[in-house]
Amino acid sequence: MGGNSFGDLFKVTTFGESHGPGLGCVVDGCPAGLNLSLDEIKRELARRRPGGGFSSSRNEGDDPEILSGVYEGKTLGSPIAILIRNRDSQPGDYDNLKDVYRPGHADWPWEAKYGFRDHRGGGRSSARETVGRVAAGAIAKKFLASQKIEIRAWTSEAAGFCAPGESDAAFDWNEIENNPLRMPERTIAEKAMKKIEDLKALGDSAGCVISCIARNVPPGLGEPVFDKLDARMAAAMFSIGAVKAMEFGDGFAAAKGTGSELNDAMSSPGVWKTNHSGGVIGGLSTGAALRFTVAFKPVPSISKPQETINRRGEKTELIIRGRHDICVAPRAVPVVEAMCALVLADFVLLQRAAKS
Amino acid sequence: MGGNSFGDLFKVTTFGESHGPGLGCVVDGCPAGLNLSLDEIKRELARRRPGGGFSSSRNEGDDPEILSGVYEGKTLGSPIAILIRNRDSQPGDYDNLKDVYRPGHADWPWEAKYGFRDHRGGGRSSARETVGRVAAGAIAKKFLASQKIEIRAWTSEAAGFCAPGESDAAFDWNEIENNPLRMPERTIAEKAMKKIEDLKALGDSAGCVISCIARNVPPGLGEPVFDKLDARMAAAMFSIGAVKAMEFGDGFAAAKGTGSELNDAMSSPGVWKTNHSGGVIGGLSTGAALRFTVAFKPVPSISKPQETINRRGEKTELIIRGRHDICVAPRAVPVVEAMCALVLADFVLLQRAAKS
Amino acid sequence: MGGNSFGDLFKVTTFGESHGPGLGCVVDGCPAGLNLSLDEIKRELARRRPGGGFSSSRNEGDDPEILSGVYEGKTLGSPIAILIRNRDSQPGDYDNLKDVYRPGHADWPWEAKYGFRDHRGGGRSSARETVGRVAAGAIAKKFLASQKIEIRAWTSEAAGFCAPGESDAAFDWNEIENNPLRMPERTIAEKAMKKIEDLKALGDSAGCVISCIARNVPPGLGEPVFDKLDARMAAAMFSIGAVKAMEFGDGFAAAKGTGSELNDAMSSPGVWKTNHSGGVIGGLSTGAALRFTVAFKPVPSISKPQETINRRGEKTELIIRGRHDICVAPRAVPVVEAMCALVLADFVLLQRAAKS
Amino acid sequence: MGGNSFGDLFKVTTFGESHGPGLGCVVDGCPAGLNLSLDEIKRELARRRPGGGFSSSRNEGDDPEILSGVYEGKTLGSPIAILIRNRDSQPGDYDNLKDVYRPGHADWPWEAKYGFRDHRGGGRSSARETVGRVAAGAIAKKFLASQKIEIRAWTSEAAGFCAPGESDAAFDWNEIENNPLRMPERTIAEKAMKKIEDLKALGDSAGCVISCIARNVPPGLGEPVFDKLDARMAAAMFSIGAVKAMEFGDGFAAAKGTGSELNDAMSSPGVWKTNHSGGVIGGLSTGAALRFTVAFKPVPSISKPQETINRRGEKTELIIRGRHDICVAPRAVPVVEAMCALVLADFVLLQRAAKS
Repeated sequence: MGGNSFGDLFKVTTFGESHGPGLGCVVDGCPAGLNLSLDEIKRELARRRPGGGFSSSRNEGDDPEILSGVYEGKTLGSPIAILIRNRDSQPGDYDNLKDVYRPGHADWPWEAKYGFRDHRGGGRSSARETVGRVAAGAIAKKFLASQKIEIRAWTSEAAGFCAPGESDAAFDWNEIENNPLRMPERTIAEKAMKKIEDLKALGDSAGCVISCIARNVPPGLGEPVFDKLDARMAAAMFSIGAVKAMEFGDGFAAAKGTGSELNDAMSSPGVWKTNHSGGVIGGLSTGAALRFTVAFKPVPSISKPQETINRRGEKTELIIRGRHDICVAPRAVPVVEAMCALVLADFVLLQRAAKS
Repeated sequence: MGGNSFGDLFKVTTFGESHGPGLGCVVDGCPAGLNLSLDEIKRELARRRPGGGFSSSRNEGDDPEILSGVYEGKTLGSPIAILIRNRDSQPGDYDNLKDVYRPGHADWPWEAKYGFRDHRGGGRSSARETVGRVAAGAIAKKFLASQKIEIRAWTSEAAGFCAPGESDAAFDWNEIENNPLRMPERTIAEKAMKKIEDLKALGDSAGCVISCIARNVPPGLGEPVFDKLDARMAAAMFSIGAVKAMEFGDGFAAAKGTGSELNDAMSSPGVWKTNHSGGVIGGLSTGAALRFTVAFKPVPSISKPQETINRRGEKTELIIRGRHDICVAPRAVPVVEAMCALVLADFVLLQRAAKS
Repeated sequence: MGGNSFGDLFKVTTFGESHGPGLGCVVDGCPAGLNLSLDEIKRELARRRPGGGFSSSRNEGDDPEILSGVYEGKTLGSPIAILIRNRDSQPGDYDNLKDVYRPGHADWPWEAKYGFRDHRGGGRSSARETVGRVAAGAIAKKFLASQKIEIRAWTSEAAGFCAPGESDAAFDWNEIENNPLRMPERTIAEKAMKKIEDLKALGDSAGCVISCIARNVPPGLGEPVFDKLDARMAAAMFSIGAVKAMEFGDGFAAAKGTGSELNDAMSSPGVWKTNHSGGVIGGLSTGAALRFTVAFKPVPSISKPQETINRRGEKTELIIRGRHDICVAPRAVPVVEAMCALVLADFVLLQRAAKS
Repeated sequence: MGGNSFGDLFKVTTFGESHGPGLGCVVDGCPAGLNLSLDEIKRELARRRPGGGFSSSRNEGDDPEILSGVYEGKTLGSPIAILIRNRDSQPGDYDNLKDVYRPGHADWPWEAKYGFRDHRGGGRSSARETVGRVAAGAIAKKFLASQKIEIRAWTSEAAGFCAPGESDAAFDWNEIENNPLRMPERTIAEKAMKKIEDLKALGDSAGCVISCIARNVPPGLGEPVFDKLDARMAAAMFSIGAVKAMEFGDGFAAAKGTGSELNDAMSSPGVWKTNHSGGVIGGLSTGAALRFTVAFKPVPSISKPQETINRRGEKTELIIRGRHDICVAPRAVPVVEAMCALVLADFVLLQRAAKS
């Protein structure tokens, strides 16, 4: 409880506030004997760092330290603790937010729950919290790679501009990590970037949609009732701040189709003729590619003046300074991958207990 | 693990196969001293029973028995076990499915996971499994009622026909339980029913979308990181078979908006000027109405001939007999409410531990 | 929470009050494909039933019904629910206990916790609660047998009479199930039985010590920090009502020895020269026999008059009628075995996730 | 799982190896708004540090850093992470242990489980692991103090010398923290210390027994079936390395008594005439003092030559150098208190969910 842990067998606990001494994670249950280097964690953290002009200008090196659980380059089976210190913290930026409830933020609900809050950069509610997830996800990805499972996410929509689908000829896997928005087609990416720059100039922000695929997921992952693969994956995705919607496979469109149109069938064992379901049926992976899509609302921290109230209940105009993303799209990609990896790693281990 | 339990403090475990001796639930953690009658459970189960011509013709009385945890009409604090026996089971209907993998079903993934399966009516993967959820949800609803929290769901789309939204004048709360599809507007309901009858005649099936609102949810419910209120609610909803998509508040549309358009702000403490977020921000309830929407794919069991393979890997044509829903819409409504109630009951109890 | 579940991967939930409609268990996480018959469960329940003159005269057939999770004689991987109805319930026996706090019982703490209680035979706090544990333990034993792990418990002390130790020539494995106290030596058993009969005549009761051995436990079971094999086993044993003490291996005597006397060493891999540790070091099984001992206090329900207070705080004299054991020794044996089996089954499954 | 977390609502996760970069804990679920200073954590860690001549000469400052969860001297409700760096690590001391299985240690079971190990000072299995528990326990103690609950432990036996019981006139609460063994009577403490010095000279080690009392525990703490207060406390205690036995109240002596002798009764509500049960009946606290006793085996690391085998299965003579305690007695006292505090803090929070 407390809600800072995720997973049953491959379990991660994260900690840290945006402007406290540091953030990090403890991964408990990673199997022993896995080769793991600090560089693999650094690489994922680097993907999460602010990049283009529409990301936060906070410049954190995000230099992780492995505190435990790895010895001579291999996981020990004991908990792997990773610490990322906050270095470019400017808590003074937030003094004007101390007594004001920011629109679109959890400030007031947090106070209703806990009685008071750390107002500096959102405290524990900051998107900076995901740094611990990405570090943990890097370990999960490494474990999954040893099982041949591969995860890839990208920005499929940003500021209202939609990228082509994977079946579209314009979709380019190699383009994804080559443009600042992590979109799979450059022209659209440029249009979206232009729109985001415009919103920035207006002191406003944008939303986005992230798509994710996991390949080589063995069939049968997931538990058939409450801990369905999609249920757990949904919990993982909605646990990322700002996520407001999710679809597996055909998603909402499936509600409009008929059984004869949408039923996935096999042509031979493990070979599916279609994948409307997005790789999961009855809560179990089918062996087809796991496919889902996640929608993020626009970043709520905007510099445009907003009307709100303060702790005394008085109306007040708020201008948020600090350093904020305009659109989380590029940085959300490694976070979605990390959470996907944590879910799959857990189920891969759990699968070992299914048969007598 | 095994995945047949849900919740931390208000915890339900369900059991039972579609054509075994019976199904049921054990609710552990329901506070002591709550007035609870068998009729309250029966009433919810009756709402879940097959109704109109497009529901399964299986006619189960769904007569629950409380085996434990209630004494002299009050909950004891000990586990409440409820048993619903299968009486109108016709397992012989399923003999032709024993060696065939039904399209759109988890037959093959189940075998991949467990080595063999109970093919009779889907076994544990049957929608009949939800009978235990609804019984447990009835208890959760009773507890929530004692906290003034009220939950209502309805069919907002069926077979492609969309009902008006709540802000629309045509939306009628009283209509919901008055038509077989549980839609809030009769004309649309009749069109959708006609379409579903047509699909039935063709041996096909339809999907639907269920909407849900919870009112009087106190602010601050949920845990701010992994166990966000929306994360747990998403896990609850995607744990219902056939769910493929979910939205909170503005959902996917939020990805297209800007911060200045979508940021919810308060006009006085606890009074929100807008509710784009659907009553949850940063994983915590805001005190505004909790609003979400869930999409169900079409029922995969259709009588239309389908091509698939059998256990020997041979191609075969399948005609599913048995008794099946054409559209789950009306019966999914109490299931969505039940799962919503389980999530909220858990968080109401958890909330008591938040402050020192 | 609520505390009616035990185990992580092989998880049991029990339910039921002493004089309610019935008791039982739900086992979630038992691997699929295990052969399981009703007779195997009946056999263990029969061992738990009242036997000799010093056991309760309540005569329950303890006729279990498997409600789910088993199909054609094999476990499905879905939850196995078992129901045992209360048939020989005589709740009227307990009318005089309704407003009185029985000495040595949890009546008053229960009311302090929950506000009211089911006074009939102790309600959920009754030793009858163990019927669900024994049913679940029968399944765990069956699973462990498939792994060659064998568990045996016996009464090593009753009413102050101590049986010989296993290394003693007088210890007879075959004698255990042949005398009503389940002691491994007949002469001592007869003396103890005589003593217990005398106590019964006086309206008093006796305590006992149960010893348990598990053989062929593979090395490395357990988790090295909080979920040590001995920690989990201790939780299992102290979760049995009336248990007041426990020792592994040399137990309290170990506190008086020296390292050079008590350090267990191997002569070849997996072959231990001594077993002072009782088969567990650093929380992990060593591969030597797992050995522990559990002490039960005397049965608190005695017919001898006792001074206590009632709900109005008035002093009162209490004479407990009802039907009660004088000494739990013989019936505690299968309960200890059942809980030991549940712990080991859980760790056997967990072990599968230890290595990469 | 992985087993490095403890507790449900007040949950601690520990991490760290004896000779890795550092150790620590993450406490998730500590209620918000609790005053907490670094000094309170330092004070408990100082009590755990090596002291007299019979403790390890490893001289760690054990200087904790609070990484998160505390803001302006108050707990935030978010996870509290604490890091203690290893500074006086001399891993070279352990080179000769790399390929040898130390008697009385978990070296071989660890390898059987995980495939390889960190041999330096026992790695994760080191008693140094308890530093994270004591830091977490300091927070739990602070929370319990706010509830008026007080915990005190002491050495009641060391190297075979037994201290007087609390009811004995010679028992002196003030003496406990005044002698290096934390015994409540100086003459016995001096005899025990002399004995321990003698064992040290012989290259040998000693065991001990720690007693613990918690006062002002409200009645009804604990859950009546598997999560009994004593069951959870036993799990907590047996999770401490080297613990081999435990008693509540009269413990093993209870097995020899009769119901009429041992049944605790009240003279008025909450006032118990006797406390044979040690403050817990039926798994629930009675409101009387919670009393238990825990036995530790002798420290297995001894400098006396021992016969064992190496990784190639060859017999070898082992002389353990490194820096080791001769008797854990004084240092085990704060560890027992810490674990007791973690259990009680968890149940205090859980209690809030018991009534409707």
